[in-house]
Amino acid sequence: MTDLRALLLVCTLKPSPSESSSELLARDLERELQQLGVVTEVVRVVDHDVKFGVSTDEGDGDEWPAIRSKMLESNILALCTPIWMGQPSSVCKMVLERLDAELSETDDEGRMTTYGKVGMVGVVGNEDGAHHVISECLQGLNDVGFSFAANAGTYWVGEAMQSVDYKDHDETPEKTAATNKTAAQTAVHLARLLRENQYPAD
Amino acid sequence: MTDLRALLLVCTLKPSPSESSSELLARDLERELQQLGVVTEVVRVVDHDVKFGVSTDEGDGDEWPAIRSKMLESNILALCTPIWMGQPSSVCKMVLERLDAELSETDDEGRMTTYGKVGMVGVVGNEDGAHHVISECLQGLNDVGFSFAANAGTYWVGEAMQSVDYKDHDETPEKTAATNKTAAQTAVHLARLLRENQYPAD
Amino acid sequence: MTDLRALLLVCTLKPSPSESSSELLARDLERELQQLGVVTEVVRVVDHDVKFGVSTDEGDGDEWPAIRSKMLESNILALCTPIWMGQPSSVCKMVLERLDAELSETDDEGRMTTYGKVGMVGVVGNEDGAHHVISECLQGLNDVGFSFAANAGTYWVGEAMQSVDYKDHDETPEKTAATNKTAAQTAVHLARLLRENQYPAD
Amino acid sequence: MTDLRALLLVCTLKPSPSESSSELLARDLERELQQLGVVTEVVRVVDHDVKFGVSTDEGDGDEWPAIRSKMLESNILALCTPIWMGQPSSVCKMVLERLDAELSETDDEGRMTTYGKVGMVGVVGNEDGAHHVISECLQGLNDVGFSFAANAGTYWVGEAMQSVDYKDHDETPEKTAATNKTAAQTAVHLARLLRENQYPAD
Repeated sequence: MTDLRALLLVCTLKPSPSESSSELLARDLERELQQLGVVTEVVRVVDHDVKFGVSTDEGDGDEWPAIRSKMLESNILALCTPIWMGQPSSVCKMVLERLDAELSETDDEGRMTTYGKVGMVGVVGNEDGAHHVISECLQGLNDVGFSFAANAGTYWVGEAMQSVDYKDHDETPEKTAATNKTAAQTAVHLARLLRENQYPAD
Repeated sequence: MTDLRALLLVCTLKPSPSESSSELLARDLERELQQLGVVTEVVRVVDHDVKFGVSTDEGDGDEWPAIRSKMLESNILALCTPIWMGQPSSVCKMVLERLDAELSETDDEGRMTTYGKVGMVGVVGNEDGAHHVISECLQGLNDVGFSFAANAGTYWVGEAMQSVDYKDHDETPEKTAATNKTAAQTAVHLARLLRENQYPAD
Repeated sequence: MTDLRALLLVCTLKPSPSESSSELLARDLERELQQLGVVTEVVRVVDHDVKFGVSTDEGDGDEWPAIRSKMLESNILALCTPIWMGQPSSVCKMVLERLDAELSETDDEGRMTTYGKVGMVGVVGNEDGAHHVISECLQGLNDVGFSFAANAGTYWVGEAMQSVDYKDHDETPEKTAATNKTAAQTAVHLARLLRENQYPAD
Repeated sequence: MTDLRALLLVCTLKPSPSESSSELLARDLERELQQLGVVTEVVRVVDHDVKFGVSTDEGDGDEWPAIRSKMLESNILALCTPIWMGQPSSVCKMVLERLDAELSETDDEGRMTTYGKVGMVGVVGNEDGAHHVISECLQGLNDVGFSFAANAGTYWVGEAMQSVDYKDHDETPEKTAATNKTAAQTAVHLARLLRENQYPAD
């Protein structure tokens, strides 16, 4: 049997090569997934010309369709986003809006093409907001057909009104490292089950 | 093999025998689950003396432990809540807080006792708020170990600033009926998979 | 001219005399308000028999009407709530639901009786969730007629997945202390302006 | 005394000349503000090359600084956004992120340059999500110094899972029209008070 595939979308506002805490978290998650035998790819969304919109292809040089292809080939999709004002980044929201198009995309038996895929959410900020960002991402992704394993979200934030970043740590904070591992394990378990046992058609 | 079991918690603010739109939605979901062979039970939370708190047993006549036992015996937990001010009801929040205790409850292999259970969310209001209520419930339940099948939420709300209730309809609005059915199908599929294939221990 | 009055509602889940971080934050805010000449009262909601509901009086020993009277006599209402699962406490939600009744309560000129009153929000948790709790409270209170001064929210939370409480500090964390002071100053300024200049009738 | 000024930012995903429900709502609000003597300007954000970021000027052809200048000259800022997946649009989030820079911008006396400005929120969708979008915008704007009058939000959404748009109506739905009017009245009242009575310096 072929390996599971995971796509990790980094939703930082800053293009490469700027350092990014959310990319760092994505890399941490990627390592956990790889150790479970998953083939992974990390895409930093703002390095590509993704257009605002709610269709699968907004035309005119839109680079979402290429990212979408990777998503369709993956069993796991992880959204990794910074927190701004206690909320997901605009880039993360742009990605969710593009995924909204999947509501109208169905296979021969009428299931959304996302059915059987498993979502994950990784969140970093220098303070406060992770639970809410996870809630927004879970709901958006579940709406468009993604399933969620137990403890699908992982995060790091610092103390209230502080300015330390995830990337300022020499190594992954212990609790976050443990949560990354759990999230990867449950997601992989669920993705394997669903690959072998697709949801029934209506 | 024994049947799957589902517990549906109605989070209306009004004790029986008041009519309740969220109970009505729970009954609609219950019927869909029963048609898929699930043994169901509906509990209207405010009919019981559930105490505020974040432990499994707040002592002193607390009736949460009895509801908790039913939850632990179930494969599926559905939260059915009205919307107030665009948000989940306080009773729904009280239930989530009591479920927060499950973070510290683990089996012999260190998994939360909720691992392998599947969550569902049903929301009704006379206007606006369902997506946000679903997001709050998904995140809270996922945090404490519940998994989610594709399209785990179902809802009905009316047009902005109107006052028609779910219970004012002679029959279930068509779109909501279809969504109830889908949510039940995916939840049952996932609950069956996870019952036979529990998440690995850490 | 008489002094401004402020009512601070503590929305902890635990009755007195349990120690409560949200009560402690309320006391910190109270001190700031008093220094600006405001007459204050702190009410710990669960010490009273407040019923679930969305009316001004749910009958049957309901103690909300007494709290509501204090609110109606106040120029400033501060909700002080703990965070559970990244969300406002169920007690805070219960208070918002009771305030929902104010939508139908109007003065002789058709203004809600809350018009001209100023809201504040204080949030504590051992980790993450303050911004979202503030957003839920701002929206709920604004919906039912409260106004908000600049920086109406104040909070303290610790680093991700930690367990230190606000009440574990020997003194108020510096940033939170500064924010408490700013929130009190802007609220008092606005409450004074609105007392002397009520919103026009429709 | 000079007239009050209001800037209305339309956060649709679609550039002009596409029809936009959120622009239509902005125009409705604009008319109400004009009737109260306010000088208004409507800007459709995606018609301009606004960069992702959290500074006042992201360089490189960034057109946010021009919009920011209009904001700084205005007494009222209205965010008008569509709902996607029950959440504010990514364009709305991008605007909030750019406004996050105002946290570090202060006048000679240490007040944020937004102090004294009044926020408004207008939301349209074909179904569900307005309250949550309002809550996200209130919190984000209040965080960076905006004040809010009673009933600062206005909206229209249709019945659950339907597809009628605000722009499909021949005239503004009655309840929304009344709410637009109220929101404009309270915002103008508050903006006038705060223009004449700025918040005290720390």
